[in-house]
Amino acid sequence: MELPHLLAAARGERPADLLLRNAGLVNVFTGEVLATEIAIAGGLIAGFGRGYDSLEEIDLEGRFVAPGFLDAHVHIESSMVPPAEFARAVVPRGVTTVVTDPHEIANVLGLAGIRFMLEQSEGAPLDVLVNAPSCVPATHLETSGARLEAGELATLLAHPRVLGLAEVMNYPGVIAGDEGVLAKLKAFRGRPIDGHCPGLSGHGLNAYAAAGIGNDHECTTVEEALGKLRAGLTIFLREATNARNLRALLPLVSPLTERRLCLCTDDRHPADLLEEGSIDHLIRLAIAEGVDPVVAIRMATLNTAEHYGLHDRGAIAPGRRADLVVFRDLAAPRAEMVFRGGKLIASHGRLLDEETGRPHRAAPTLPPTVHVDSHRLDFAIRAAGGSIRVIGAIPDQLITESLVMEAALRDGQAVADPERDLLKMAVVERHHNTGRMGLGFVRGLGLKRGAIAGTVAHDHHNLVVIGTDDLSMRTAALAVANAGGGLAAAEGEHVRALLPLSLAGLMSDRPIEEVRDDMKALLEAAHELGTTLHDPYMAMSFLALEVIPALKLTDVGLVDVERLEVVPLFV
Amino acid sequence: MELPHLLAAARGERPADLLLRNAGLVNVFTGEVLATEIAIAGGLIAGFGRGYDSLEEIDLEGRFVAPGFLDAHVHIESSMVPPAEFARAVVPRGVTTVVTDPHEIANVLGLAGIRFMLEQSEGAPLDVLVNAPSCVPATHLETSGARLEAGELATLLAHPRVLGLAEVMNYPGVIAGDEGVLAKLKAFRGRPIDGHCPGLSGHGLNAYAAAGIGNDHECTTVEEALGKLRAGLTIFLREATNARNLRALLPLVSPLTERRLCLCTDDRHPADLLEEGSIDHLIRLAIAEGVDPVVAIRMATLNTAEHYGLHDRGAIAPGRRADLVVFRDLAAPRAEMVFRGGKLIASHGRLLDEETGRPHRAAPTLPPTVHVDSHRLDFAIRAAGGSIRVIGAIPDQLITESLVMEAALRDGQAVADPERDLLKMAVVERHHNTGRMGLGFVRGLGLKRGAIAGTVAHDHHNLVVIGTDDLSMRTAALAVANAGGGLAAAEGEHVRALLPLSLAGLMSDRPIEEVRDDMKALLEAAHELGTTLHDPYMAMSFLALEVIPALKLTDVGLVDVERLEVVPLFV
Repeated sequence: MELPHLLAAARGERPADLLLRNAGLVNVFTGEVLATEIAIAGGLIAGFGRGYDSLEEIDLEGRFVAPGFLDAHVHIESSMVPPAEFARAVVPRGVTTVVTDPHEIANVLGLAGIRFMLEQSEGAPLDVLVNAPSCVPATHLETSGARLEAGELATLLAHPRVLGLAEVMNYPGVIAGDEGVLAKLKAFRGRPIDGHCPGLSGHGLNAYAAAGIGNDHECTTVEEALGKLRAGLTIFLREATNARNLRALLPLVSPLTERRLCLCTDDRHPADLLEEGSIDHLIRLAIAEGVDPVVAIRMATLNTAEHYGLHDRGAIAPGRRADLVVFRDLAAPRAEMVFRGGKLIASHGRLLDEETGRPHRAAPTLPPTVHVDSHRLDFAIRAAGGSIRVIGAIPDQLITESLVMEAALRDGQAVADPERDLLKMAVVERHHNTGRMGLGFVRGLGLKRGAIAGTVAHDHHNLVVIGTDDLSMRTAALAVANAGGGLAAAEGEHVRALLPLSLAGLMSDRPIEEVRDDMKALLEAAHELGTTLHDPYMAMSFLALEVIPALKLTDVGLVDVERLEVVPLFV
Repeated sequence: MELPHLLAAARGERPADLLLRNAGLVNVFTGEVLATEIAIAGGLIAGFGRGYDSLEEIDLEGRFVAPGFLDAHVHIESSMVPPAEFARAVVPRGVTTVVTDPHEIANVLGLAGIRFMLEQSEGAPLDVLVNAPSCVPATHLETSGARLEAGELATLLAHPRVLGLAEVMNYPGVIAGDEGVLAKLKAFRGRPIDGHCPGLSGHGLNAYAAAGIGNDHECTTVEEALGKLRAGLTIFLREATNARNLRALLPLVSPLTERRLCLCTDDRHPADLLEEGSIDHLIRLAIAEGVDPVVAIRMATLNTAEHYGLHDRGAIAPGRRADLVVFRDLAAPRAEMVFRGGKLIASHGRLLDEETGRPHRAAPTLPPTVHVDSHRLDFAIRAAGGSIRVIGAIPDQLITESLVMEAALRDGQAVADPERDLLKMAVVERHHNTGRMGLGFVRGLGLKRGAIAGTVAHDHHNLVVIGTDDLSMRTAALAVANAGGGLAAAEGEHVRALLPLSLAGLMSDRPIEEVRDDMKALLEAAHELGTTLHDPYMAMSFLALEVIPALKLTDVGLVDVERLEVVPLFV
């Protein structure tokens, strides 16, 4: 809208497009809730107060109106659907802007993957702002689908929805002044640069902050978060599917610290998004734990907008975008209406025009990304000793133990031994069809029969298989490979459950509700196969992540994370 | 400094340049005071904590260390000295960055005046960041030395120390969508745009905020300021020489509002700067009135830095500039040491190297700006009626009354009548030697004899003279004109006191202490001549400002401000 028109509407000399009457405006600047009317023109807030005329009006009957929520950091791929479908899940909950790191797809498809996420979010009913993935691949001890250096990342800067650099997980590299890492920081100088530095403190934290890193979302204790706040990092309070840190960090919220705290979901699975929610869930959780509702909302709106320099949103004020959430209960905000750019786009949990969520375009497609020859899927391990290194999975944690156990030997081979919860694990390189495969053993998943497999394996997303016998492993792996990626459970020659994820082996092209249902079937199958974990697929997806201690398996082999070295299976 | 060197210092693997031991670090992110050590390398904070080595160290013996103070809005010309000399006064008090609006000199010299301020602050021990003056001239009912439109202002954007657009005083123009005003806003889109909207509320305020104005420093009541905060403006709490609003606004400071409050001095005269102080005075005042010291400091550091997007300062954190203030009493911070870029530059109220304050360059010079022919200084007013409009000056206020009084007539002329406190006033166009002169009468200054004159006359800065008789007026006016500008008091043919302000008629090329002393002599002279005002020169300097109600005199004539029209002297 041209400014003169907006000014005329603000002056009240020209009718607004829409007037929200009887609103309880949550004013994030002053912390007040104001009984008022809100005039909207050309997608922007023209003003609030009394005496405005409008072409259309809605009587909110005293409901509250907050700015649209911002998710400060999310990997959309974790929802297992592409951006427009993700929007269907989160927009009706009041989320109108997300800052996303398309880190997972970038590890599979590089720049093409990032551009896919940008294209797929074009025209979505959600502002998808993208930070460029900084750590592709995570280390040299894995084979990912792509490698992104500073020069390639910098080509993204011209895109209007690319904000800055995404979580710089290679914090040892930052601290040590690694040349390639510093080149990336330099390329994004003056732009937001996201952090990721679990447990960091002291001199290391000073160096990380001095390098220009702006935030961190990996804190698990108040003490850790306070140290990072002191050093100048903004803290994103996270409540992900696999990392539920919000409650533990809420004691950090005080009048003095609050402005530098934001809310983020990081990774949320379909079931959590559909059943608990997105940022709205975090707001309700914070309020339930005693945070002032306006402060909770501010952490999800103004604070995030200010942190990222998004001065056109994050508050209900003249000239800002009319991205609004309407709800009835200030103690537990649940969106009844969501406005984006002044248009009502969602009501009572559903997008008004379901088509909006799936713009008029062909279903998303991507080239095949699972390149595995079936004849190479030989998981046999020739015995070379009596003791083996075993990855010790810990329930609900990403870290593992590095165990040594007696091998189960049969016919000159080391095999799984479900009695001792000793399962075989394979990580099959799937990007370049090199045939490279890491083989090892894992304890802690509890499968008694069969196998599970998947192409969601942070961060390289190779094909991971864990099972009690080679036939089940092969069946599961082939099911996933033939589907072009996905998750599967198998027993013998039978595929027990399958969730195809044909988009980069990470996302489905089907509705998120169907993905959630498939995921439930997968979990049931795994539980029938004997697993003791709530979600063995998620556990599996982190057992190949060689940047989180202690022992992990990649396609290159068993990795001692602390030494960042490949170590032999047999001790 | 190269980042790898800073990182090495942060890691503690390379000695810092300077270590401040036994410091009470005022952490503006968390609101804490931390007993710690601060390591500085290459002018930046490398880190804080324990275990750092350094080439040099200072034991602060428990003194507090805060970030260098920022003045959110100041007209340096009001100190009557150019930037480097101004720095001598404020830097030893802990001010390390000012955002200045060279609005006064711009009205005299246009872009050349603004460039003079930029050049004169180059190499000064103070970061002088400049906003481009938006309202030159203030209205069409005055003759200023220059006219600046959007195109000329935009040429300033390339300068690294030009931030944005300075206070858009023409708020009626903004609200109405005046084309020339909107062109200026457009030219500075994406940059900070300062506001100035005394008393504005309701629809007008909505329009002003919708136009992208970011702040306001003209609030006089909490109610007014709260309304502007709600609309999204950041509020600068001001304590100027002539507008002391801080105390009245302090009840606004709450945990919920504080982040959007900053401190500014706007206009401070030499005596106030030297005797009370600058931003440090405002901090002490706020604390004395009950504001938490860390919050008071935050309003003068982090808040201002964040408002202007100056992410390299405003806090003591790794990677930020080591601009620091050391003081002993948290309840009344008085700078004992000031560091800029890690160098100790001031100690106990004085710059360490006085030369730093006056960079190695020739004394500042500017072309003559007072162009007045002495033979045109004829203040005679032919009587044209029995009643006249009279400007009613009100002590300590910028607004005036519009009075009607019986004229004092002599020999067919209207003359001054000190018995009734009716003084003659003249505003002589001094930029282009047009001979244009406005003549009128003023009440409220109380002169019994003689006259005062000056070239400081907001905003056009023409030559203003007020007196009891034409001879004294001519003597005062000539003294000022012959000095190339300044302030004077005269009686008959005798100049009683003179402060030459040869730089644009606004600033002296002498030390600020001498300017202060001359100013005191001027005030004494005026009081001897009978004035009842504390500072009749300041009162005079606003009697010609035709944007503040109700009746003013410019070189064009008597201006009825509410109608923005010239009105005749005789009713």
